[in-house]
Parts: sequence; C-alpha cells; structure tokens
Amino acid sequence: MKTILLKNRPKGRPSVSDFEFVENDSPLEIKDGELLLETTYVSVDPYLRGRMSDAKSYVAPFELDKPVHSGIVAKVIASKHTEHKEGDYLAGMLDWSTQQISNGEGLTKVDGEKAPLSTYLGILGMTGLTAYLGLTEIGKPKKGETLVVSGAAGAVGSVVGQIGKILGLRVIGIAGSDEKVDMLKSKFGFDEGINYNTTEDMTAAIAKAAPNGVDVYFDNVGGPISDAVLFNINHFARMIICGAISVYNNTELPKSVSVQPFLVKNSALMQGFIVSNYSEKFPEAMKHLSTWLAEGKLTYSETVVEGFENIPQAFIDLFDGKNKGKMVVKI
Amino acid sequence: MKTILLKNRPKGRPSVSDFEFVENDSPLEIKDGELLLETTYVSVDPYLRGRMSDAKSYVAPFELDKPVHSGIVAKVIASKHTEHKEGDYLAGMLDWSTQQISNGEGLTKVDGEKAPLSTYLGILGMTGLTAYLGLTEIGKPKKGETLVVSGAAGAVGSVVGQIGKILGLRVIGIAGSDEKVDMLKSKFGFDEGINYNTTEDMTAAIAKAAPNGVDVYFDNVGGPISDAVLFNINHFARMIICGAISVYNNTELPKSVSVQPFLVKNSALMQGFIVSNYSEKFPEAMKHLSTWLAEGKLTYSETVVEGFENIPQAFIDLFDGKNKGKMVVKI
Repeated sequence: MKTILLKNRPKGRPSVSDFEFVENDSPLEIKDGELLLETTYVSVDPYLRGRMSDAKSYVAPFELDKPVHSGIVAKVIASKHTEHKEGDYLAGMLDWSTQQISNGEGLTKVDGEKAPLSTYLGILGMTGLTAYLGLTEIGKPKKGETLVVSGAAGAVGSVVGQIGKILGLRVIGIAGSDEKVDMLKSKFGFDEGINYNTTEDMTAAIAKAAPNGVDVYFDNVGGPISDAVLFNINHFARMIICGAISVYNNTELPKSVSVQPFLVKNSALMQGFIVSNYSEKFPEAMKHLSTWLAEGKLTYSETVVEGFENIPQAFIDLFDGKNKGKMVVKI
Repeated sequence: MKTILLKNRPKGRPSVSDFEFVENDSPLEIKDGELLLETTYVSVDPYLRGRMSDAKSYVAPFELDKPVHSGIVAKVIASKHTEHKEGDYLAGMLDWSTQQISNGEGLTKVDGEKAPLSTYLGILGMTGLTAYLGLTEIGKPKKGETLVVSGAAGAVGSVVGQIGKILGLRVIGIAGSDEKVDMLKSKFGFDEGINYNTTEDMTAAIAKAAPNGVDVYFDNVGGPISDAVLFNINHFARMIICGAISVYNNTELPKSVSVQPFLVKNSALMQGFIVSNYSEKFPEAMKHLSTWLAEGKLTYSETVVEGFENIPQAFIDLFDGKNKGKMVVKI
C-alpha cells in the first residue's frame, strides 16, 4: 500500500518534490461498519493548489505530512459495511493511497455499466455539477445571450460551453492552443474559439467573436484574459468566478485591471462559485447531466494518465494546460 | 437667465474651464402644459464625472456644448400646467440653468414644510435611495454582521452607515480626515472610523476594526482602499460597488489587486449598483427613509455652496473630499 503525503507547501509552481511517497506493508484490517477500498481513478484538479497553501480559504488547507485527498473512484475489496459489498465501486473524497479504510461516509455508489467509471470524477461528478450549477445559478443565462468561457478546453470549461449551446446561447471559448480551439468547435460545438497564446489583442478578438457583447462569463482562469473580457461586458453581465488558475502559482500578489468601474458602469455582477455550496441542487443537476449525456447532447474529453506514481506530475501538468478536458489518473 | 454647458470632455481631473457659462436675456415663454422653473438647489455628484466622458456607460454621456444636468429642486414661477401651480417646488433631473421650461415629466412635487428643500436632493432623494437600496438589495445584511463603508463621510456613505446601525450591524467607516472620522462616530453613530490618509497599513486597520471580518462592503471609492477591504472579507461577503471616485479622474487604466482569487476563496459577491435599476422599490425605500428621518433615527450632513456660478467648482471639490455629506449648490 502506497500513500502520497504533502511534504512541503509549494512556493509558486508545485514540484514533484513537494510530495512524498510512503509505503506500508502491514495489511489493513477492517472493523464492523468499515470498507477496504482499492483506488481505481484519481481526479487531479486546479483547486487542490489552494488547499496546499495555508492561506485562509473555503476549505481547510491540507496538513503537512498527511495524505493529500481529492475525488476518487475506488473498488470495495472487503466489506463489513451493511450497505456496500465487495465489488461495488464508490466515488467521493478519498486519500491519495492505493488502498484505504473508510466507513463509507460521503461516498456514493457508482455504476460502471451506465457510464465509464472515470466520468463520475468528471462530467457526472464535481466537474459536471460545477459547470451546470455555476452557469445556471449565477450566470442565469437567457436564450440568445452570449457566453464566454475561459479555460474552455478544460474539464469544467468544455462542459460549460456545451450546456451553453443546449440552453441556446452563443458560446465563445478561450483556450491555449489551436488544437484545443479546433476541438472546442468540432467536438463541443462552440461557435467561436480564441487561442490566447497566439492572439495579440484579446480585447479586440473577444469583441469580434462577441459582436453583441458578453452577457455571461464563466471564468476559470483570472488574470489578463479576464481583464480582456471585462472590456466587452454588457449591461447586467454576470461573471461566474469559478477558478483563477492563471494566478494560483503566483508568489506575488497578482494585479489586474480594476474591476470596480466596469461593474458600476454595467450594473454587472461577479460572484465566486464553489460547487459545495449548492449541494441541495445536486440531484436536479445530475438529472440534466445524465439525461443530456445519454441523449448524446453532451460529450467529454478525458486525459488519462496511468500509474499511482504519476499523480503528482499529472496535477502539476494542469498548470501547463497539458490536459484536454478532465485529467484523471488510472491506478 | 444663465446656463452652464459642457465645453470639453475633461481629461483626468475636471477643471472650471471644461464648462462654459452662457447668458440669454430674452424672456422664456411657456405654452399650454408647460412650466417656467427657477432653480433653487443643484445637486453635484461624483457620478456626473462619468457622463462627462464619452466612454460606454449606463447612461448616455452629456453632449458637448449642451447644458449639464443633475438633480435639481426648482420653484414654479409660471404655470400653464394642469397639475403644478406657481409657488410649487419640484424635484428631478433638470439643466444647470437659473431658469428653464419643463412639461413636468419626471418631476416630483416636494414639500418644504415637511423637510428642508435640499433634503430632496439628499437623504430623501437619490442619495438616500442609493444608500438604502444598495445596502438592502445587494448587501442583504443580517443583524450582527459587520459592514464597512468607504467614502463614509460622503452623501451616500453617511446614510449607509446609519442604516447599518438601524439594522443592527457593526459599522466601520473609512474617510479622509480625522474630523470626518470623528463626525462618523459622534454624529452618525458608526462603531469605528479609519482615516485612510493617516493610516499606513489599511489592511491591518480594517482587521483591527472588524475582528470578525467583513460581511458587507459598501464601496464608493474603489482603488487601494477597496483592495485592503478584500483581505478582510468573510465567506459569502457581499460587496456593493456603488462608485469608484478614487479612479474616476485616472487617465490611465487603474490597476488593483486581482479580485477573482478572493471571490473564489470566499464565495463572495461583487455587484455594480445603479439606483435607477430599482425604481419599483423607491416607494418602499422612501417610506423607511422618511419615517427614520422623522423619528430622529437618521440624520444628515450637507455642504451648501452658494451661487450659480460656483456649481462647477463645487462639483470639482467632490474629488478632493471638500464636502461633508451631500454637496448642494443654493442658487
């Protein structure tokens, strides 16, 4: 049994040496009410970077020399639990360990027959819920409006854009390579894509792609891309602030264009979004997501890395945009 | 009859030479349905700066070589109007002229016996409505929460803080002189005041004044003061972006601390507020404001400048904080 601990709080960009692998050869013994789980898929997500710092945040930081945890799909390999039996697959927040004991709390049974197991970490998991609930609860989009999505080729962004199309919006995605931009349009049905790495004047490029202005902005990145969107917002624009991956590794406090004058001029809204605040809406959201997936209206991309030992590197690669869609590690 | 025209769009800080005084000696003739009005009080407000630029905004910019207009109380000196008669006082958006003709549209009769005429430009006018509706509709304050107000000694800020106290909040005001800070506490009942001109570490000063963190921020100023508040916001904080007077005269695009990471970490909200979007709530708001004023629970400060020719300078003086409370010009 192997486990990954947080060794150091990363300074700036995380590195593999911020993590420590430990092995334990003594067998795990379960008691009544417990499950022995074997990890199958591990989700790596940008928000984990925040938990590796000790700054005040919406969830407690990871502790040093303790296991990192994230969304995981695991197989029950032994059970003294009334509800879950050997061979079941469960999804939930678990440690970065090859095996672990759980009392089942916070874990949901998932069905690999209905959808691939990894999707319960993605489009049928936190990723899909984040996309659906952020867009609908804060964005409140109306048919015919224009939606801009940053980090559009990422796990959340690619789902946001597709839901935008289902809801009748004009959808513009911002991503970091021509290949990703092509994928946004050909695979996910975005109306327009902008490669921020090759576009000199992002403000002008957004204006061109959104001739009627931007009504809803689903922001995964922050930084200069979000500044450029601000110049194009409409009156009563809604900006869902879901992540700020472009500044998560900054060691100095990031500076941007002052948003306040834009908000006043346009009676516009910016709201930080954390999916866990909307748990009472999960069943409704899951119903839409699984229906759309079954009907073929939603599709997804996954980047699957193999091997427990590659979890830290897969996480670090998120910050270089090496993933297309959801990044998961298969154990 | 004298009128003030916008001569130039100000570059940076407005100057008196951006305005032009014109005289017209031919008497004004009214037709059926019209009123001849003599200006009594003129409101000067920071938001007018925005209308002097031609940048896209929530209201059309003022036209060059046309009269500037703002909130005005005027006396009817001749009437061919069915509703309003000679001697009535009316309040509404009117030109910066000593006399003018109106068909009465958009004007409300005001009663100088019930409250001083100038209050209809202040606490019983747009100022009071902005304070009440911004705080309650966006801020949604709950008893026991902490409210920070910037521009606290200004027209809107001083009312916001008092309403905060009526609603059971801990109220901290930020202003630009010790005299103003004293006034916040002694006259308006704020719990704490901070002089941003003499405080080196605003973030620490706010933390000290708001030991439980900041739940609601009523922002009239933007810029570095608002940056310092960000470091002190609580989970689910609501920030009412009502104005950004600290940057209105900037000729370069103002930069600030990136707000997005703070919004994500705290599931916090920032929303631009324009009182005119809430007109259906005006009657309810006016009821509260006039009741509280009559009961002595609300008080106000006014800076009254005398003389039509001093309107431009009074407006410019707002940007140096020369006003305490509402700045009006008495004609």
